Amino acid sequence: MTSAAPRKALTLDTINPNVKAAQYAVRGELAVRSEEYRAKIKNGGAKGLPFDSVISANIGNPQQLDQKPITFFRQVASLIENPLLLEHEQVLIDQLGYKSDVIARAKWLLQELRSVGAYSQSQGASGIRERVAEFIERRDGYPSKYTDIYLSNGASSGVNTLLNVICAKPETGILVPIPQYPLYTATLSVLNARCVPYYLEEHHAWGTDLDAIRESYDKAVAEGTDVKAIVVINPGNPTGSSLRAEDIRGVLQFAAEKGIVVIADEVYQTNVFIGEFISFKKALRDLQKEHPGQYDDIELASLHSVSKGMVGECGHRGGYFELCGFDPKVAEQIYKFISIQLCPPVVGQCFVEMMVNPPKEGEPSYELYKKEYDSIFEGLKQRAYALFETFKQMEGVECQPPAGSMYLFPTITLPQKAIEQAKKENRTPDEFYCLRMLDATGVCVVPGSGFGQKEGTLHFRTTFLAPGTEWTSRISKFHKEFMDEFR
Amino acid sequence: MTSAAPRKALTLDTINPNVKAAQYAVRGELAVRSEEYRAKIKNGGAKGLPFDSVISANIGNPQQLDQKPITFFRQVASLIENPLLLEHEQVLIDQLGYKSDVIARAKWLLQELRSVGAYSQSQGASGIRERVAEFIERRDGYPSKYTDIYLSNGASSGVNTLLNVICAKPETGILVPIPQYPLYTATLSVLNARCVPYYLEEHHAWGTDLDAIRESYDKAVAEGTDVKAIVVINPGNPTGSSLRAEDIRGVLQFAAEKGIVVIADEVYQTNVFIGEFISFKKALRDLQKEHPGQYDDIELASLHSVSKGMVGECGHRGGYFELCGFDPKVAEQIYKFISIQLCPPVVGQCFVEMMVNPPKEGEPSYELYKKEYDSIFEGLKQRAYALFETFKQMEGVECQPPAGSMYLFPTITLPQKAIEQAKKENRTPDEFYCLRMLDATGVCVVPGSGFGQKEGTLHFRTTFLAPGTEWTSRISKFHKEFMDEFR
Repeated sequence: MTSAAPRKALTLDTINPNVKAAQYAVRGELAVRSEEYRAKIKNGGAKGLPFDSVISANIGNPQQLDQKPITFFRQVASLIENPLLLEHEQVLIDQLGYKSDVIARAKWLLQELRSVGAYSQSQGASGIRERVAEFIERRDGYPSKYTDIYLSNGASSGVNTLLNVICAKPETGILVPIPQYPLYTATLSVLNARCVPYYLEEHHAWGTDLDAIRESYDKAVAEGTDVKAIVVINPGNPTGSSLRAEDIRGVLQFAAEKGIVVIADEVYQTNVFIGEFISFKKALRDLQKEHPGQYDDIELASLHSVSKGMVGECGHRGGYFELCGFDPKVAEQIYKFISIQLCPPVVGQCFVEMMVNPPKEGEPSYELYKKEYDSIFEGLKQRAYALFETFKQMEGVECQPPAGSMYLFPTITLPQKAIEQAKKENRTPDEFYCLRMLDATGVCVVPGSGFGQKEGTLHFRTTFLAPGTEWTSRISKFHKEFMDEFR
Repeated sequence: MTSAAPRKALTLDTINPNVKAAQYAVRGELAVRSEEYRAKIKNGGAKGLPFDSVISANIGNPQQLDQKPITFFRQVASLIENPLLLEHEQVLIDQLGYKSDVIARAKWLLQELRSVGAYSQSQGASGIRERVAEFIERRDGYPSKYTDIYLSNGASSGVNTLLNVICAKPETGILVPIPQYPLYTATLSVLNARCVPYYLEEHHAWGTDLDAIRESYDKAVAEGTDVKAIVVINPGNPTGSSLRAEDIRGVLQFAAEKGIVVIADEVYQTNVFIGEFISFKKALRDLQKEHPGQYDDIELASLHSVSKGMVGECGHRGGYFELCGFDPKVAEQIYKFISIQLCPPVVGQCFVEMMVNPPKEGEPSYELYKKEYDSIFEGLKQRAYALFETFKQMEGVECQPPAGSMYLFPTITLPQKAIEQAKKENRTPDEFYCLRMLDATGVCVVPGSGFGQKEGTLHFRTTFLAPGTEWTSRISKFHKEFMDEFR
């Protein structure tokens, strides 16, 4: 062999075209550039930059910003990581601030798992799944079985599992809300299946619009798509919405009518500022109770995670999904599929357990837990509204009130000249705007095109996790200057 | 809607046929049945069973058996989980047995990560990847760049990522050793790509046989397969082999000749009992040095994990892969693919850091670390040879000496009557044998057919992780009775 020209087995032309086609803007070019700025500032190279800190408002990553972890969770985690500490209970209690319920919980988890360093069952430790089922029963007032619970590596791997099992052929279609969290479209790209987009109603608090769903469904079917499932994200990402009871019920009735699976992404279920969270599971069981026999065949998969809410333990990669109404033979295939990757991270499983079974009133750790939990909730709410007020005062910006999740998704109306300049730079107008914002302010947000938006509209998504409000004024100052520049 | 007959969107006939086709025996029927026995015994229902404990020899899960975690790792983990403990350094040192290097390491990790509850970069925290690159440099004597390191959710997710990117179409083929760890065939099934099997040479210590590889390759190409990569597992799973330098070099030269990627699964690199571990990376760089310009185009991906070796932290789901010689545009696609799942478990990333950068001679934790490490290594070696000696004395059983990894994979020659009985029960003979073994002894092993074996041969895989040697005599007693029954 005396090859001269490079000869690679893998090039952009030979790798999996479905991977190539996938898009995932949340961690794309903007995120990469913001990390470069951050490194520059860290290494003392901030001179010449018009800002002195980077604000990562592009991703729901609470503990990378100022959110402190909940003490009970982390105390328990320290003990299950180093069980030898349990030989010093008095030191833990007298000198290190551990309470007896922390110690009891750690012992219980260790008994269930033997070691957090051991693989668990593929579906997750059965004792932990029992706690999840009890939580769902308390939340919804309807039974839940631990054998229907599948612990996962964050909710993302749950979505990946479900879509892998459902997507049978290139014609398989999944109804996905637009705007959506791009995990859905990216995974469908990788699986070479079809995204069947349905638009949410921005001017009705980003609710679901049954007519729009029906129209998308019919159009897809007419084009030969075999629509198998509908995804709903509630509370909404990136929209910041919180669905009304009738919206949820409408989706379930539609799914029953068409015989399609419902995938309910409910990872923000505790981040609700307007109204109350209603799970798809509860809504389904209510429907079934009211109309005996009529909705028995509905297949529902609902997902939850330790990454969001007041827990915010993204890095621990804990989550679960519950299956309702699935054929047991299909559930067996799901079990086999997840077995190939052995098991979800075991410490993440323990965080799931603690999330669904936190200290109760009267228990030694309850008071501190409650205080921490409430203070995170209030902080998020306050910042959400502060940001909302800022947006209200910005020219050409319109924003729905913060109702749920960790995001706002304002509409921006940009001057024609800005749109032309974006075109010259070979970028979408919202991408151009967000890049300009990052370069001017250090604030990293994600353009609406990363989530999908109605033709002719422009948005961006921002979290409201970053501490303080100074950075919101960076945005409004930038916006004013941007509008003036391109007026 | 007044449906009467059940109407499910998802049935065995409508789900993804590629998922349905996948096989993963390590956690299949035998494993499930063994868990049922274990539950029975736990709940006091052991009466009537001919054994009083279940031995899970089916899966390399050290800490589910008797392997204790390494103290340094777990002490550091307890501090990164609960950083508030760092406010009590004196208590940690004086009363809880923590050394100053444990505290220093935890502080360093926390500075890198901010919080183990935060998402890291998709590729893993850069500081941790720097440590991995330094480790590879020390191990091989050749440079390594942290930008080429991708932290993963165990090595399994690394394999999943690589195969997702490589498998471009149904005709894509990957050379996979037979016997193999079924992650490879299962993932190729899910991806609807072709497994191109090449047989290992059982009677040459399960080494690679270049003629067999060449023959498989040619046959596949003749059938229209686009062979893109070759997988090598070294040390071997399930074979317990440790490849010789010339085998490794031969595979690299073959890959260069054909222009295919090498995927080196090196998760057992510290479990070596005969000879020494030579990484594919080192062998590649040696080749390149000896033959300037001739092997520059080789694309190598090598994988490692915290689950095996003396670390044995399976539940923490830590791992990494290093890319050598990949087109940067392809590496970008790999980055995007892993971004969709956000990041590997952050505590698992920390275990990777500690595995590649353990306490050094002269540091406070070194002595204990060394003692624990050596004692695990010696224990594994002793049990491997005890099991090997047992197999040598069993009629119709032949086993290669334990050379590496955590497994033995003996050949079994079964009486014709047993083979006929298996057929009657609609099972393969090795599956029939392993089920009988489980029912008689409580020892769970995996039939050779779960890994692949030459037509007409029968094997089973057993780990040598379970404590004691009592269980090996259960196997030999069962074997004798089985042979007598079907003689």
